[in-house]
Amino acid sequence: MISAAKRKLDQELGIPLSVTSEWDFIHIGSFQYRCRWDENWIEHEIDHVLVVKADVVVAPNPNEISDIKWVDLELLDQIMDGEVSDDMVIAPWFRAIHDLYIMDNYDETLEHSDVIAENCMMGDLRMDPRNTPGQSLLDALGSHREIVEGVIMSSLGKMEQERLHGAMTHLFAGGGKRLRAILPRLVGDAVGEGHDGHYTLGACIEIIHNFTLVHDDIMDQDPIRRGLDAVHVAYDDATAINAGDAMLAVGFEILAETPHIEHESLAFLVKSIGEMVRRVAEGQMVDIEFEDRDEVSEEDYIAMITGKTSAMFETCAMTGAKLAGADDSVVENMANWGMNLGLCFQMMDDLIDVTGDTETLGKPAGSDIVQGKRTLIAIHAMRSDLELPMFSKVFGSGDCSEADLAEAVEELRSSGSIKYAKQRAMQHHSMAHACLDQLGGGSAVDVLRELTDFQLIRIN
Amino acid sequence: MISAAKRKLDQELGIPLSVTSEWDFIHIGSFQYRCRWDENWIEHEIDHVLVVKADVVVAPNPNEISDIKWVDLELLDQIMDGEVSDDMVIAPWFRAIHDLYIMDNYDETLEHSDVIAENCMMGDLRMDPRNTPGQSLLDALGSHREIVEGVIMSSLGKMEQERLHGAMTHLFAGGGKRLRAILPRLVGDAVGEGHDGHYTLGACIEIIHNFTLVHDDIMDQDPIRRGLDAVHVAYDDATAINAGDAMLAVGFEILAETPHIEHESLAFLVKSIGEMVRRVAEGQMVDIEFEDRDEVSEEDYIAMITGKTSAMFETCAMTGAKLAGADDSVVENMANWGMNLGLCFQMMDDLIDVTGDTETLGKPAGSDIVQGKRTLIAIHAMRSDLELPMFSKVFGSGDCSEADLAEAVEELRSSGSIKYAKQRAMQHHSMAHACLDQLGGGSAVDVLRELTDFQLIRIN
Repeated sequence: MISAAKRKLDQELGIPLSVTSEWDFIHIGSFQYRCRWDENWIEHEIDHVLVVKADVVVAPNPNEISDIKWVDLELLDQIMDGEVSDDMVIAPWFRAIHDLYIMDNYDETLEHSDVIAENCMMGDLRMDPRNTPGQSLLDALGSHREIVEGVIMSSLGKMEQERLHGAMTHLFAGGGKRLRAILPRLVGDAVGEGHDGHYTLGACIEIIHNFTLVHDDIMDQDPIRRGLDAVHVAYDDATAINAGDAMLAVGFEILAETPHIEHESLAFLVKSIGEMVRRVAEGQMVDIEFEDRDEVSEEDYIAMITGKTSAMFETCAMTGAKLAGADDSVVENMANWGMNLGLCFQMMDDLIDVTGDTETLGKPAGSDIVQGKRTLIAIHAMRSDLELPMFSKVFGSGDCSEADLAEAVEELRSSGSIKYAKQRAMQHHSMAHACLDQLGGGSAVDVLRELTDFQLIRIN
Repeated sequence: MISAAKRKLDQELGIPLSVTSEWDFIHIGSFQYRCRWDENWIEHEIDHVLVVKADVVVAPNPNEISDIKWVDLELLDQIMDGEVSDDMVIAPWFRAIHDLYIMDNYDETLEHSDVIAENCMMGDLRMDPRNTPGQSLLDALGSHREIVEGVIMSSLGKMEQERLHGAMTHLFAGGGKRLRAILPRLVGDAVGEGHDGHYTLGACIEIIHNFTLVHDDIMDQDPIRRGLDAVHVAYDDATAINAGDAMLAVGFEILAETPHIEHESLAFLVKSIGEMVRRVAEGQMVDIEFEDRDEVSEEDYIAMITGKTSAMFETCAMTGAKLAGADDSVVENMANWGMNLGLCFQMMDDLIDVTGDTETLGKPAGSDIVQGKRTLIAIHAMRSDLELPMFSKVFGSGDCSEADLAEAVEELRSSGSIKYAKQRAMQHHSMAHACLDQLGGGSAVDVLRELTDFQLIRIN
């Protein structure tokens, strides 16, 4: 592989083998890459990513390369964000490399010596600059959002009591992508026949998802949700408990009432969603228990988020497929996709909490560390042999200065804990793509591929 | 009616008209009375209850009366409880009079001047001393309890997480009659074909009933339930919230899973039970809001308990009938029965809170008064023109001495507020019986009649 890289550098950039033979290439990973260039042609290959730091004169071969540009990290970010030129075309494989390997810390990328993301599968990437990554997903979300919002709001309208209705609709005013609401329909379109029943199913799961947030915020005593007061703060604990209960009931009610879901399907849906709620409750319970435990293993953590976060994605995918008339093996495959999607989602969420900024998050950055949450990052750090004095001081302290928190995050970076968590997230991202590869092609499946990548990019 | 009474006293007890013509009879009410004496003969009549206080010599007519006995209230209670003689036969109409008119306070019965319970309908009463009132009900409860308990406990066994499972099963260890669990089956037997699906349905509603208690106790900050620590006390608020959520989910799950409920029936059940949960949440919300409101009308109160308490009885009866294959008019009639049963149940509960003792209740007697609960008794008292200084002082105070509380209760008695609430309870008791009278006969319907009376007697 390194020989091939040297050949390519000679042939394309005119760097002779006499120079590159002295270089220490670092193989930081590889990814499966697929890009549709036009109606008929898809590029589909495995790309390896090698890194080297060197001072060299290049002489590009004009048959291969029309121009080169030296950029620092800041300019690179601006280019990727489309801030430099609107019509600059970014090769989809380069965007994949950017997103997968260098978005955290470029210097680190150059220095570390092990693999970041091995055999990672990316979804369909697009060449057309008007089709920015995730555009099919954004289009699909846009085409369904209004309808499903309507189903959600009219369903919550069943509650006539004013205060309770207010508390039940409060979180929906805070925006949100309605991902779980639209997911069953997207899956339905991808594996069979998407129909109006999928909107009811999506509304049911979205309402239930929001119910769990209302109750979780009471249990965790979190005051903020989506940048707004949590329901128990905007109202009070009793109202929030009651509102959550009624939301759960409404979720089941609308499934049983809609003419778009056959009686034959109802039992499967009620059973699956009941089980989902139970698993979410169990995950939440275990999450709370973690705070009092000396030792939490990686397996414990995976089991916890499999319930608390993944169960809902799994159920969206599984029930969406079933409702579209898919056969059992497809339903199971989609459940598996949803589970891996959810695991990747939660791990990325944990990463974003540590590496994101407070304004984007709508809650304090690093709050997981301050609260002593056992995420993969924390579990890795706690079992590392390294001294992490600031992390040890800040973790679970309940309160600390911004400077201390920043230093703790830096320790997590140098301990490799952040990188490790990202690797694990990428594993589940790949496994999710592997499930989609078992489906046929088509634009509806492409939407699911983009959605799978969306976990990494977090389009707003 | 008074002339007829005088004639009977002369004819049966030998008290001449010259004596009784001087007496001031008080008509305290009347009731519809029905008693099956044997296979073929039912006594079915309206009985009027007159009271008089007099000093007189009696000379019973041996053709009518074999013996008489003068008893004080204490001895009377012992006789009614079967403590004096095991084989003493009590005429069912006398037991009806005892339960309806003199169980609260015998002296008051003698002194008040208006009707306690007008045209009250009692269920089938029995003559056979081995068949004490409620015996058919007790037999029916006994024959179903073990099976339905088994369904409940194995359903809750779905939750493998130890702490959550403990919290979910905690209240069931406190006993309880499992009335809501058995009710669907009893209704099924009375109107059509009772079957195993009724046990699942009953377990579902009982689990959901208990979930509402778990959450209610957090909202109301009640520390005691069924003489045990409430779940949020035995565990903590977060666990109790979570356990309740999981219980609700399990309720729906088992309905969808059982082979004993057809897919065609499932939609009706899920819809009805979802609506029930929503109405219970709404009732609980309104109940909490009452505490901060200056004025709560009787209509407001009825609307609140129609949700908070009656919705569950209504749903038990309605879904039980539907699952037995009853037609829509029967289903509606049974829903109406359940609603009136629930209203009577809640009003009697309010009465028992004020007039019962702490030991029997498993929680402090009079706690509704101390907490400032707007029951019918309180609403009546607050709008009465009478001065009720101790009631005003104690009501909603949050804490008071036993002596003050006893004095407040005495004020509620003399203001007629307790009596008024009892009259209203009796109205719903009668309306419930009127629903049952629309059904055919048979022992399964008799069980429902006894269950209707059970609200008044509260057999343990």
